[in-house]
Amino acid sequence: MTRIFTSDFRDDLRLDRPDPLPLHTLDRVDRPTTFIDDDKVKRVDERDGGFYKAGKGQYGDSLKKEYRRFVAKQPLSGALCTMAGALGHMVDEPAKIEEAGKTPWGISAWAPMPHQSEHTAPGTDDPTQNSLHIKETAYFLRSDIVGICKLPPYAVFSHSKHTGKKIDLKHKYAISIVVDQDWRTAAAFNGNDWISNAMSFVAYSTSGFIACILADYIRRLGYPARAHHAMNYQVAVPPILLWSGIGEMSRMGDVVLNPFLGPRYKAAVVTTDMPLEIDMPIDFGLQDFCNKCGRCAEMCPSQAISYGDKGMHNGYEKWVHDIEKCTSMRVGNPNGSGCGTCVKACPWNKPFTPFHRSVSWALRKFPSTRRFGIWCDEKLGYHKPNYKKKWWLDLDQGDDGRFFKPKKSGFNRKK
Amino acid sequence: MTRIFTSDFRDDLRLDRPDPLPLHTLDRVDRPTTFIDDDKVKRVDERDGGFYKAGKGQYGDSLKKEYRRFVAKQPLSGALCTMAGALGHMVDEPAKIEEAGKTPWGISAWAPMPHQSEHTAPGTDDPTQNSLHIKETAYFLRSDIVGICKLPPYAVFSHSKHTGKKIDLKHKYAISIVVDQDWRTAAAFNGNDWISNAMSFVAYSTSGFIACILADYIRRLGYPARAHHAMNYQVAVPPILLWSGIGEMSRMGDVVLNPFLGPRYKAAVVTTDMPLEIDMPIDFGLQDFCNKCGRCAEMCPSQAISYGDKGMHNGYEKWVHDIEKCTSMRVGNPNGSGCGTCVKACPWNKPFTPFHRSVSWALRKFPSTRRFGIWCDEKLGYHKPNYKKKWWLDLDQGDDGRFFKPKKSGFNRKK
Repeated sequence: MTRIFTSDFRDDLRLDRPDPLPLHTLDRVDRPTTFIDDDKVKRVDERDGGFYKAGKGQYGDSLKKEYRRFVAKQPLSGALCTMAGALGHMVDEPAKIEEAGKTPWGISAWAPMPHQSEHTAPGTDDPTQNSLHIKETAYFLRSDIVGICKLPPYAVFSHSKHTGKKIDLKHKYAISIVVDQDWRTAAAFNGNDWISNAMSFVAYSTSGFIACILADYIRRLGYPARAHHAMNYQVAVPPILLWSGIGEMSRMGDVVLNPFLGPRYKAAVVTTDMPLEIDMPIDFGLQDFCNKCGRCAEMCPSQAISYGDKGMHNGYEKWVHDIEKCTSMRVGNPNGSGCGTCVKACPWNKPFTPFHRSVSWALRKFPSTRRFGIWCDEKLGYHKPNYKKKWWLDLDQGDDGRFFKPKKSGFNRKK
Repeated sequence: MTRIFTSDFRDDLRLDRPDPLPLHTLDRVDRPTTFIDDDKVKRVDERDGGFYKAGKGQYGDSLKKEYRRFVAKQPLSGALCTMAGALGHMVDEPAKIEEAGKTPWGISAWAPMPHQSEHTAPGTDDPTQNSLHIKETAYFLRSDIVGICKLPPYAVFSHSKHTGKKIDLKHKYAISIVVDQDWRTAAAFNGNDWISNAMSFVAYSTSGFIACILADYIRRLGYPARAHHAMNYQVAVPPILLWSGIGEMSRMGDVVLNPFLGPRYKAAVVTTDMPLEIDMPIDFGLQDFCNKCGRCAEMCPSQAISYGDKGMHNGYEKWVHDIEKCTSMRVGNPNGSGCGTCVKACPWNKPFTPFHRSVSWALRKFPSTRRFGIWCDEKLGYHKPNYKKKWWLDLDQGDDGRFFKPKKSGFNRKK
């Protein structure tokens, strides 16, 4: 759909630009703009993640209990998450995909062979052509942004949180599939009210849906491929986003910020051995911008985000945030479902209208505009909820399973 | 994503317009612009459809054999169709959805209760508010167009082609979920080459994905709901599209044509008893336009589309097309996968750029512009493939399962 708004005669002139957003205007650099000590970064055990710890009771009994309901207590995020769960079966194993892909009356006559072909398909030898083809395919499948990098070995989790088993993934390349969390909703919500988890999960489930189809397609072409999405990861996504030019590390901690969507997106990943040409990391001045801004730290309800300078954490230069505080707010939020207050707070969370693309261009190119831009953004009140645009239902779920209208909705530190 | 291009300050002024496309500019009428003899229309047996007959050998042995491979012989449409099959389990039965929605390591802690709540949720009594809410939800889930009508009893199939059983569906309302088949690809292809089935199935599977989530959500709110999509229908979609204001009957036969997407879309449906306010049918002058045009009939490779006037068929006034010829081309196409040559031919198949929206407005409002518009459209060559934009792989599958590059790609009647 996006492409019906962006396609025009210029398409004919630049066949190397499949992207609906103008990624070609971004400055590319050899390495991410934050230091990564490639030799020192250790592979992460997925069980060290905040959600896993909350579910296991490592952040207390109250969060352990809330963990079982914090997404499904709001019915839209519950429905989205159920769909994401179904996509967990469709990441790589042919037998499982064949089983999942069976229609209720058996295998469809139309869709046999979800397994990897034994022979590579003709016309898939050239990395440059393959990358263009994979990007066009991912955009055809309705991705919002696509980027490709070599799979950094340290991006592969050491162990799965679900099986406890060691992960062995040796694919050469990683394709990032980015999906917007919806600007209209982001404009309306206050950051941590009842729609927050649904915003995450519409992007998680949609990017997972696209990644599963794309991985199946690549296997049919004869190359190994695996989809990684919210309900079945084998990789940590942030380093892959950095290397594939989706964004830069931001003050928010592990959030890789994109110049067009800001932090308002989620990404799935397809890893593969198909020969691909990689993208380069981008530099749009975010390290300087985040140094000058800090609105996410001010607005964070759990004060999990650093007000200070970057430090080193497991070989990454980053603003180190407090994972326990962040997770506790997202899982334990009593006045909403989840939390994305940093998404709401961020001046980069904007629509792609002519006005905002001009401002974004100026902020990217001219460091001297940034303090003024941050000041204007605050004066214009973009960090405040616009409840005139509110369309969702505030609903919480009682112990009897019944939904009720909660008394409060969200929490705003900054008026 | 669409809404990051269309959201602007005007949103604040018109809260009753959730639609990214300007549906509010369309003329609404009491009944569809083609006569429907409500008392005479008989419910259709799904087994009378062309694809079912082809699969059963009623159109000959050659098509019976081709039926088993005509989608999966091209790997992208094969992958899309496998995903659509998986969605076939998730239309209404809680136990099946719970089973499908189980992550590979069991039920997710985050997504319990895919079944209908016993109590309706607070804030869901008002039909006007509900319709706005359901539309906003469907757009949030990335639908392209949404419309709502009463479910015409004659739109319900009499029997399922899969089970052979009688269908009993008494829901009051039907929600149409429309998804674009991608303009950029439609501009590039010739109508019946190797990407044609993938265009259908990206829209089938994506609209099905959205419909399954929306139906699950409505059930959680306490109302019965069922998703209907390409891999599990209980309703015929065209009458629902007519009554919910998505489009008018076109020369192509059963294709309901939309003024913004033309015939370049597929739709899934959610039926429900949730109280809803309905939309009215639209009139954008298509009956006059199709009378003056006929390019789809000229270009149809199997000559399945009528050159003449409308007639009556099962209580519907329509241009009656030859289903056997149409199905034979789509299933048996030796030089491509599927066929959408009528989509390619149609002057309404356009992007939504400032130029095209002006032309579309003039064609809708002023009948005298239509002949000239049709003439210009042909002179500008929109019906021709633009292979400079071609991004997909021409691939056919041999009996050994191996993909190979076919000698021919598509068939163009009109140069």
